[in-house]
Amino acid sequence: MSQTGQPTALFELDRADHVRADPDALSELMGMRARLMKLHGLTPELDDNGCIKWGSLTEADPDAELVFLGLDGDRGCFAAVPKRPVQVQRGEFMATITRLHDRQFGIYAGARSLVDWHARHRFCAQCGAHTTIGKGGWQRNCVNPDCGASHFPRTDPVTIMTIERREEDGSRRLLLGRGLGWPGNLYSALAGFVEPGETIEEAVRREVMEEAGIPVAQVRYLASQAWPMPSQLMLGCTGVTFHEHIVVDRTELEDARWFSEEQVREVMSGRPGLFEAPPRYAIAHKLLRMWLEKV
Amino acid sequence: MSQTGQPTALFELDRADHVRADPDALSELMGMRARLMKLHGLTPELDDNGCIKWGSLTEADPDAELVFLGLDGDRGCFAAVPKRPVQVQRGEFMATITRLHDRQFGIYAGARSLVDWHARHRFCAQCGAHTTIGKGGWQRNCVNPDCGASHFPRTDPVTIMTIERREEDGSRRLLLGRGLGWPGNLYSALAGFVEPGETIEEAVRREVMEEAGIPVAQVRYLASQAWPMPSQLMLGCTGVTFHEHIVVDRTELEDARWFSEEQVREVMSGRPGLFEAPPRYAIAHKLLRMWLEKV
Repeated sequence: MSQTGQPTALFELDRADHVRADPDALSELMGMRARLMKLHGLTPELDDNGCIKWGSLTEADPDAELVFLGLDGDRGCFAAVPKRPVQVQRGEFMATITRLHDRQFGIYAGARSLVDWHARHRFCAQCGAHTTIGKGGWQRNCVNPDCGASHFPRTDPVTIMTIERREEDGSRRLLLGRGLGWPGNLYSALAGFVEPGETIEEAVRREVMEEAGIPVAQVRYLASQAWPMPSQLMLGCTGVTFHEHIVVDRTELEDARWFSEEQVREVMSGRPGLFEAPPRYAIAHKLLRMWLEKV
Repeated sequence: MSQTGQPTALFELDRADHVRADPDALSELMGMRARLMKLHGLTPELDDNGCIKWGSLTEADPDAELVFLGLDGDRGCFAAVPKRPVQVQRGEFMATITRLHDRQFGIYAGARSLVDWHARHRFCAQCGAHTTIGKGGWQRNCVNPDCGASHFPRTDPVTIMTIERREEDGSRRLLLGRGLGWPGNLYSALAGFVEPGETIEEAVRREVMEEAGIPVAQVRYLASQAWPMPSQLMLGCTGVTFHEHIVVDRTELEDARWFSEEQVREVMSGRPGLFEAPPRYAIAHKLLRMWLEKV
């Protein structure tokens, strides 16, 4: 908080897990000083620096369920669950992410995933009865006493990977693909959900085999990122193959092909090149950069 | 498959993603040669080598929903969804996992997570209507035409981490904890769910701070494992700290403390030591071993 009592736009959010299960602490935090994330549906209001704008809880619909996001110092920060599930177009989401300040990405990603999950889980998947919000928004509870199931927000692990082929002359090639209906001439790293029963490394190998027919030898984890459309944990990996012939799965991809180091470097330098690179805020961008830097 | 037409107990399961959305291929695979995982509730029948036993689809309850697990060569492999959610005690689950062959872990883990998820998702979380199985068991669809939501099996990412403290004399200490109600004198790596909006590395730091009050500097991913109780993706990491004073979160842990390299080595060698090590099939066991080997 600044000296004037105005909240500073940039702050670290303490998730304050211990508060969630403490109804007294939670209701105390819902007082005058509480902050409400300014959301229109799932789209945040941002200031000129790309920082999320906050209001007070009085701005929320009186019937709205409130999710406790965490603490900014001693002030509770909340977000309101939309009345019904909101469909956000990819363009609107991308416009938000493009403008959003890097250091606010996690705060927005967490809030968006949570309130969207609540809006889509007002009923119990086990018995069909109503559910009510619990633990400050980190749980929903079935109201049917014969069921009483608890439900928790979900985060879906997704692998995303740069796959490298080494030529006999020592040069390197990178496997990139284009999803169906992707804008412009965008090519990016292949990606896919981790399935029940798999490790990260198995999921990488299965996805690359399914989508491009390429067997992958060694797989290495590089970095992760939250991706709130709707609630993924992107697991950035890199892998090596000695196989060249691509078989594109046309139900998933429009195209997949090998690019040379020079081609990727040109595109990532921002100059017009053979294809469009993934946007800078996507983990795919970071993975392509790491591939160029041989991380 | 062996020459005699009997299925071999050990085989690689091809998840055959392309079959799931192809009703004709699926129904063809459900013929005479199809294999059904022998499950009692969620507990598999195992042979003397710890391999899963399989029967034919005629052994399934005629009303049971069937999940397509994948292909063994050209034979479809399936598992039946229990009529109602099954509660498995930790002891029964551990007994299964202890006996299960290493190379069958992923097959069982995937099947168990899937059929358990179906048994708990017979209703639409969005509108409360019934759902029906779709895509060979990799989806459920709401029957209410005004809703029509699709639901997908979930996999919850969980971080689990060895945290190392380096002494001035160059010796190393390892942070381990005991969960509430854990058997015997078991100590293991701290662990916790990745929350919406977090990276793996952020989740590791938050969990270790919450559970033990220890700030973690550098975090490094080491390995992952599926854990079907009910459906986790365990993300094994290691981290370094320079902080000594532990503050145990008594709502989560019974104890947390530093162990010396000698103490951990003794316990992991199988000799009676200061504590009991996590069982060999758990990723925690692998993480402790990697810590000793300075991986």
